[in-house]
Amino acid sequence: MQTTPPTIGVFDSGFGGLTVLRALMERMPQARYAFLGDTARLPYGSKSRRTIARYAAESAQFLVREQGAEFLVIACNTASALALDAIQDAVPVPVLGVIEPGAEAARAASVTGDVLVIATDATVQSHAYAAACRARGLRAIEKACPLLVPLVEEGWIGHPVTAEVIRIYLGELTAEAAACGLNPDVLVLGCTHYPLLRPLLEAAVPAGVRVIDSAQAAAQAAVQLINGASGSHETGQHSPSAQDQLRCFATDSVDKFERLGSRFLGHPVGKVQLVDLGG
Amino acid sequence: MQTTPPTIGVFDSGFGGLTVLRALMERMPQARYAFLGDTARLPYGSKSRRTIARYAAESAQFLVREQGAEFLVIACNTASALALDAIQDAVPVPVLGVIEPGAEAARAASVTGDVLVIATDATVQSHAYAAACRARGLRAIEKACPLLVPLVEEGWIGHPVTAEVIRIYLGELTAEAAACGLNPDVLVLGCTHYPLLRPLLEAAVPAGVRVIDSAQAAAQAAVQLINGASGSHETGQHSPSAQDQLRCFATDSVDKFERLGSRFLGHPVGKVQLVDLGG
Repeated sequence: MQTTPPTIGVFDSGFGGLTVLRALMERMPQARYAFLGDTARLPYGSKSRRTIARYAAESAQFLVREQGAEFLVIACNTASALALDAIQDAVPVPVLGVIEPGAEAARAASVTGDVLVIATDATVQSHAYAAACRARGLRAIEKACPLLVPLVEEGWIGHPVTAEVIRIYLGELTAEAAACGLNPDVLVLGCTHYPLLRPLLEAAVPAGVRVIDSAQAAAQAAVQLINGASGSHETGQHSPSAQDQLRCFATDSVDKFERLGSRFLGHPVGKVQLVDLGG
Repeated sequence: MQTTPPTIGVFDSGFGGLTVLRALMERMPQARYAFLGDTARLPYGSKSRRTIARYAAESAQFLVREQGAEFLVIACNTASALALDAIQDAVPVPVLGVIEPGAEAARAASVTGDVLVIATDATVQSHAYAAACRARGLRAIEKACPLLVPLVEEGWIGHPVTAEVIRIYLGELTAEAAACGLNPDVLVLGCTHYPLLRPLLEAAVPAGVRVIDSAQAAAQAAVQLINGASGSHETGQHSPSAQDQLRCFATDSVDKFERLGSRFLGHPVGKVQLVDLGG
């Protein structure tokens, strides 16, 4: 059993993936973490598969080659949906996305087998959640909610406008589900920004619909993957110092990352280092 | 006097700059146009000056070297605010941004000399409008309105949610102006997406405040620049065919450009060609 703490690389197009990092740190407080937000090239959600694959592969290589990551968690739904294969081809370490764990958590939670998914444009257009749900015998209806990320980044987390936008989006989604004869009992949050809207979303879903957070599901799956690959780290003796535990990198807008990141991570992100991936 | 129609390059980070192209085509229907939307790397509004300057210079070089543009209009407030010098250094043709024409139109319209400006985060942080207004003896208060672009792109152009967001933003801006002792009579739209919201904005501004559209102001300034540089083209005899008149290029998301572009241009954009600027 390995007793030195593992180094886990966490990647997102921006800093929404800090919600996944937060869930990982709660479950594996003794691990070391390197987080990269490809903020110079966000949002991935409106870009093509080809572009996203290239950006994500470069980011993954930075975390593995330059930061020594032994495992990668792709804390970006768009990159998980469109570029997981490209990332796995680009680095020699285990890679985990957020789509499969999210679908697996939906399967565990759903009784009716019918699932609602909200995500960015690109994630929805990939139909990655629908495919992952179908592979588990679930029927899924997906909806792009492009206003929710800007609302979170504006800080309107509990704002009446955000509540109204959510009411409109979920109303359209549940109407579509009903028109298709579905009886959904689960709503999957298919974007790492959305956990910050969880209270508003839980207030807006129809009675009996459970909200599933892909960030939490991915962190749980990562713990299983990492412990399975190299023995349990949960009781490792060589815990890193707080200073060593988390290194954050961004390809642009370091100030914004430092300013807004704590909202997602739940505590200050500290000093964020600027890296140039050449894009 | 040159009688062959000039080729005008129009550049934006996305397709919002099509509102500037539309205003140009209305004023100079006989010119040829090449429009580039750097959609692979949008939004510029959340990126650093260094990154924006590099992206904009590469885009300008494409329009001049590969499309033969003899004049460049930077139909992107963020690039005009942060990268006009870098673009002028990168290409050997006259370059016009949207900031100076917008400020000049505000000067012409304002009696009190006090001006409100709404724009993206990066444009506001650059304080380019405030500086351009100050140089003309105007006092300006700027406000970032990051939700307006996503609302336009969602198609919620006349939507009650958009009206409410505008009411909140303009309420905060006019309260700040009043706190500073200003008496504004002009609102400058410092983002090329905002002209699509003009009806809602005009309904929301205080009585006596005129709305100034930087896209219209920039097109007017471009006509003067181009006619001054090479003689009047307004009555040119060799008008291009419709097919030759406009070539549109995008670095990504060609489908989205074709689908949404007509909303900004006022008629279909036709076939959009994908170009790779290497970013």
